[in-house]
Amino acid sequence: MQTAVIGLGSMGYGIAASLLRAGHATLGVDSRPEPMQRFRAEGGVPGTLAEAAPALNALVVVVLNAAQTEAVLADALPRLRPGAVVLSCATVAPDFARRMAAAAAETGVLYLDAPISGGAAKAASGQLSVMASGSPEAFAAARPILDAMAGTVFALGDEPGAGSAMKAVNQLLAGVHIVAMAEALTFGMTQGVAPAKFLEVISKCAGTSWMLENRAPHIVDGDYTPRSSVAIWPKDLGIVLDIARGASFSAPLAAAALQQFLAAAGSGLAREDDAAVAKVYARNAGVKLPGQV
Amino acid sequence: MQTAVIGLGSMGYGIAASLLRAGHATLGVDSRPEPMQRFRAEGGVPGTLAEAAPALNALVVVVLNAAQTEAVLADALPRLRPGAVVLSCATVAPDFARRMAAAAAETGVLYLDAPISGGAAKAASGQLSVMASGSPEAFAAARPILDAMAGTVFALGDEPGAGSAMKAVNQLLAGVHIVAMAEALTFGMTQGVAPAKFLEVISKCAGTSWMLENRAPHIVDGDYTPRSSVAIWPKDLGIVLDIARGASFSAPLAAAALQQFLAAAGSGLAREDDAAVAKVYARNAGVKLPGQV
Repeated sequence: MQTAVIGLGSMGYGIAASLLRAGHATLGVDSRPEPMQRFRAEGGVPGTLAEAAPALNALVVVVLNAAQTEAVLADALPRLRPGAVVLSCATVAPDFARRMAAAAAETGVLYLDAPISGGAAKAASGQLSVMASGSPEAFAAARPILDAMAGTVFALGDEPGAGSAMKAVNQLLAGVHIVAMAEALTFGMTQGVAPAKFLEVISKCAGTSWMLENRAPHIVDGDYTPRSSVAIWPKDLGIVLDIARGASFSAPLAAAALQQFLAAAGSGLAREDDAAVAKVYARNAGVKLPGQV
Repeated sequence: MQTAVIGLGSMGYGIAASLLRAGHATLGVDSRPEPMQRFRAEGGVPGTLAEAAPALNALVVVVLNAAQTEAVLADALPRLRPGAVVLSCATVAPDFARRMAAAAAETGVLYLDAPISGGAAKAASGQLSVMASGSPEAFAAARPILDAMAGTVFALGDEPGAGSAMKAVNQLLAGVHIVAMAEALTFGMTQGVAPAKFLEVISKCAGTSWMLENRAPHIVDGDYTPRSSVAIWPKDLGIVLDIARGASFSAPLAAAALQQFLAAAGSGLAREDDAAVAKVYARNAGVKLPGQV
């Protein structure tokens, strides 16, 4: 198949590399020259999206947000042939996904609402989780792409927007759970519970979560190399709370978690691993996390 | 061994029954006649704590809170022989545990700070988790009791208070995670995500938690039979926030979660399963949970 991936960040690059490995001719597009050159050196198709678009079977959009997704599709939809499929992977509002699907339908292009989860390592190995919704035709056209990039595809029905809704639900929980882990770990420190002991005991108790088991080790190790950065969360919890406000839904935990991530971002931690939200708590509580002096 | 269990609620009764099964002569004491009579019918030792105390090897205190624990120990400590051990299982502040241990030491009684986790079913089967701290002598004296009541004993050091600190950390997370589950599940409903689909998908994603996997099925089934009731949480998160305030620790998620449990308790849901906090969200959002009409 002829494919293109727009956005070669940590997730998009992994998807593009997975498509190449699966034997699909793949064009990688990014606003920065470096990842485009690197991807071509790995076997990516040369050229521009304008040149490639008329022959594409599938376009995978892995940009930062709704505004970038809209800009990409405004440029690409008129160039794609009818029957081509767009997989839209950014975290966006369900209403936005429905609007983009309708715009695609106007030019005969299929649209799969396909937000992703799993992180850079799973993107690189073609083992992402995809929360997908769209018409049976869109699923069928996207199947070879999903086979190459995903370990798990949650098929959430015929309606674009259902995938984005589930992604928003997941991000609400994931964001709250990271902050809850940071709050509990640092609270424990004020009571003499060492972070390593916290991780050892709580990961086996009713207080555990996927995020706790994944992120607390970063704090125990004092390693804030960004696997997923603080900067993701003002964006993703902002989307969650925008959707919630639109539905007159009161979400006090998501709102409180957002404030902690904003405090982290505002105090210079935006590019650190999202576990660094614990530094906000540690500073406020006057305790030193492992590795802090 | 000669043992007594004070407090025959769902946890204490299970512990007392586990001690009986392990072959220990066990007196069960409660303010209500019904569970005392039931326990005697199962083979429990007849009599009063005043009569039994001088011969006891171990006293297990499984009452509601610190005030009840203090009242029990004020009565029991002067009657226990030196070398007997108290296992204190209520969720209390670490400072309170240290104070009780000091009071026990004055009469030569050993003290194990031994809060428990796991719920009524694990109490009944002798498979509780115990977050224990105390002197090596206290651990040694309590060993046969721990063997009978616990599946897992986290040995958290020589200092009374360390067990209670870890329990408070666990309760902070457990309480926040129940409310986060309720918030996310009902948020999803406003976006067309059915509760059963929420459970199916999110339990396999990064947004999952132990509490989500344990409690969300109650909502999906519309079954609010209390395995653990709403009423537990104003108490336990209140203890967490009292400890936090004492340490000048800012805990915005725990504080927000407490408000949601208070709204549940205040609106008549105190005796329902703690998953019923979702009813507060559902009412505020104008959605109907499974089984609601």
